[in-house]
Amino acid sequence: MENLKIDGARLWDSLMEMAQIGATEKGGVNRLALTDLDRDSRDLFRRWCEAAGCTVSFDAIGNMFARRPGRNNNLPPVMTGSHLDSQPTGGKFDGAYGVLAGLEVVRALNDADFETEAPVEIVVWTNEEGSRFAPSMIGSGTYVGEFELDAALAITDGDGLTLGGELERIGYNGEGCGNRPSTAYFEAHIEQGPILEDEEKTIGVVSGAQGQRWYEITLTGRESHAGPTPMAVRRDALVGAAAIVTAVNQIGHEFQPGACATVGMIESSPNSRNVIPGQTFLTVDFRHPSDDQLARMNEALHAAAETAAAANKLELDFKQIWNCPATVFDAECVHAVRKGAEIGGYPHMDIVSGAGHDAVYMARVAPTGMIFVPCEDGISHNEIENATPEDIAAGCQVLLHAMLDRAGGK
Amino acid sequence: MENLKIDGARLWDSLMEMAQIGATEKGGVNRLALTDLDRDSRDLFRRWCEAAGCTVSFDAIGNMFARRPGRNNNLPPVMTGSHLDSQPTGGKFDGAYGVLAGLEVVRALNDADFETEAPVEIVVWTNEEGSRFAPSMIGSGTYVGEFELDAALAITDGDGLTLGGELERIGYNGEGCGNRPSTAYFEAHIEQGPILEDEEKTIGVVSGAQGQRWYEITLTGRESHAGPTPMAVRRDALVGAAAIVTAVNQIGHEFQPGACATVGMIESSPNSRNVIPGQTFLTVDFRHPSDDQLARMNEALHAAAETAAAANKLELDFKQIWNCPATVFDAECVHAVRKGAEIGGYPHMDIVSGAGHDAVYMARVAPTGMIFVPCEDGISHNEIENATPEDIAAGCQVLLHAMLDRAGGK
Repeated sequence: MENLKIDGARLWDSLMEMAQIGATEKGGVNRLALTDLDRDSRDLFRRWCEAAGCTVSFDAIGNMFARRPGRNNNLPPVMTGSHLDSQPTGGKFDGAYGVLAGLEVVRALNDADFETEAPVEIVVWTNEEGSRFAPSMIGSGTYVGEFELDAALAITDGDGLTLGGELERIGYNGEGCGNRPSTAYFEAHIEQGPILEDEEKTIGVVSGAQGQRWYEITLTGRESHAGPTPMAVRRDALVGAAAIVTAVNQIGHEFQPGACATVGMIESSPNSRNVIPGQTFLTVDFRHPSDDQLARMNEALHAAAETAAAANKLELDFKQIWNCPATVFDAECVHAVRKGAEIGGYPHMDIVSGAGHDAVYMARVAPTGMIFVPCEDGISHNEIENATPEDIAAGCQVLLHAMLDRAGGK
Repeated sequence: MENLKIDGARLWDSLMEMAQIGATEKGGVNRLALTDLDRDSRDLFRRWCEAAGCTVSFDAIGNMFARRPGRNNNLPPVMTGSHLDSQPTGGKFDGAYGVLAGLEVVRALNDADFETEAPVEIVVWTNEEGSRFAPSMIGSGTYVGEFELDAALAITDGDGLTLGGELERIGYNGEGCGNRPSTAYFEAHIEQGPILEDEEKTIGVVSGAQGQRWYEITLTGRESHAGPTPMAVRRDALVGAAAIVTAVNQIGHEFQPGACATVGMIESSPNSRNVIPGQTFLTVDFRHPSDDQLARMNEALHAAAETAAAANKLELDFKQIWNCPATVFDAECVHAVRKGAEIGGYPHMDIVSGAGHDAVYMARVAPTGMIFVPCEDGISHNEIENATPEDIAAGCQVLLHAMLDRAGGK
């Protein structure tokens, strides 16, 4: 079983062929969810799976399941997958890699005529990116019960088209939705960050996903003329906002290891060269693998915002708009991934996912693990997203070992 | 001569009547330069001046001059004035006060049958606000030679209409432009800041106008995902910009008395909640009555920007886009204003103008002084701009004394 090998060249070729669907001039992919191009990618995946002996079905939210039977089909399947939709200026690897790595595992099992004990299923989750239909991860979220099916189908895109209508239009509206028992769920993905590359590791053994808290902060002072208004009487909202940006960055550095702290948006009013800003809005994105630490970061931010407002005589409107607890992946699944990396002889390290993935939802209903591989300069959600064939193959090889570990067989 | 009195009620009535032209629902004025409403205000001013025995002329850029002869008409005139155009959401006092205070001086001289030695002229400068035709102060700027006449006439508004064409359309295109000798120029104006109100003074004896330097700063880092990008490897442009905003504010406080330092605009890209800002643009507005201090502020800003860029691994694009030296008004004119305040028994203080005024250009070609009166909460360029009849009258009384001081007569 340890001698089973995936075919890295075949996997790479499939990835490149899939990337032709919605290919952009800059080498990326534009394949928004439930467009004709998304249908084309689903059709291609389906043909490949059926050619590999799988039975393909899909549920009411359009999630696709390609099943390779096991010896004991009463056992819940070992699942793997990701998504085929992309950002409007996305890359060739985000999502597609996890799906086609699953396909390569099945092909490798076929080549070796290897029968798993539990069945194996490759899943394609609908609308992971959230670029066309917000929020993101609607397919896996509906599968695990985070979203109501009817509400999810009623979500509209920017042109007012519903998710349900578009699903029907491309012919991927199936029956029923909801999680069925599964033995394990694994997802291979590019890291979308620079850690593995910086640490010169081929495999990230993902131990879980960071908790996240999002905030919206508005500071209100007094808009006045930049010339005749003395420094001492100013109520400059942007000066207060700058203190918060600085504090957010300091909090990020203080709560190491693991903390990420970002002010992504800032908007100041009236935003005129010679007028003291009367109101400034900013958003804060806090992440940490530990919910306790995240709670302490929350307290530090609150204190910093109060101080910044008081120091500049500003009114403070402080809102936490999202609080998503940290996810800890299943110990046995994480162990199976680590063991797979050891079997393959790949340099590896434990890592926490900073981004959201379908695996984060799946962890609520199934023992779950993830495998990261490096991407060039840590860049993703960008047409220049890149990864090496060697790393792509290594991640798939680890996926094979991890799935076999949980599925059993000989 | 010290017993001459202006009529505060008549001045107030004229101000309120003028404010009907372009009156807004919120109690302000919308009277953009060279519109029909600007023409109506010019026509009204002209009728009033002619009724007061003045001869009205206008030059090629539309500046209006209402002349009351003196005993010796070979002497250069003592001039006073301001502007009748307004911001789109402007107030009743900004500009109109200086023009109508001049008219009230003439009316008061007429009432007393007082003959000045030198002639007196009330001037209305074209397009002071710069709201319709940029930049501001085109009329006085062309008069003193800052702008070429042909270039000024060719300036277009947002609809592509030229200043020259609009001037002709409303019938205020005269002949010639350029400064004639003048004995002195005085301008009465609301302060547009809170200092007089805070200090409980009725009259600001304006000693000059602040020097100004304007900057545009762009910081470029690396746009990346707020989740998987560790704090240590970030190149967050907004964190660098926040350090500059903080430094600008500190510089403003350090270079007291007199310094004003403002970041009025900030724009961050891609300005998305979960993306580390890759590029941030900001503007800096520095003002100080001393050019030496302003040069030191410039050095401090440059150093702070370099430090902020280096600390966050950012590229720095640092541009000084405007450098306007400080203006020192004529000592005798300033003294004449102070003496006028003393004769009237008004609480007064020396003050430096933070905003630009036509008087700043006039100071290049004539002995110049300004008189400030308080405005409510220091608010201007706003429909709620307000001032008391008592303060408005006091400023005009001081103007009368100052003009008589320079014009002589009995």
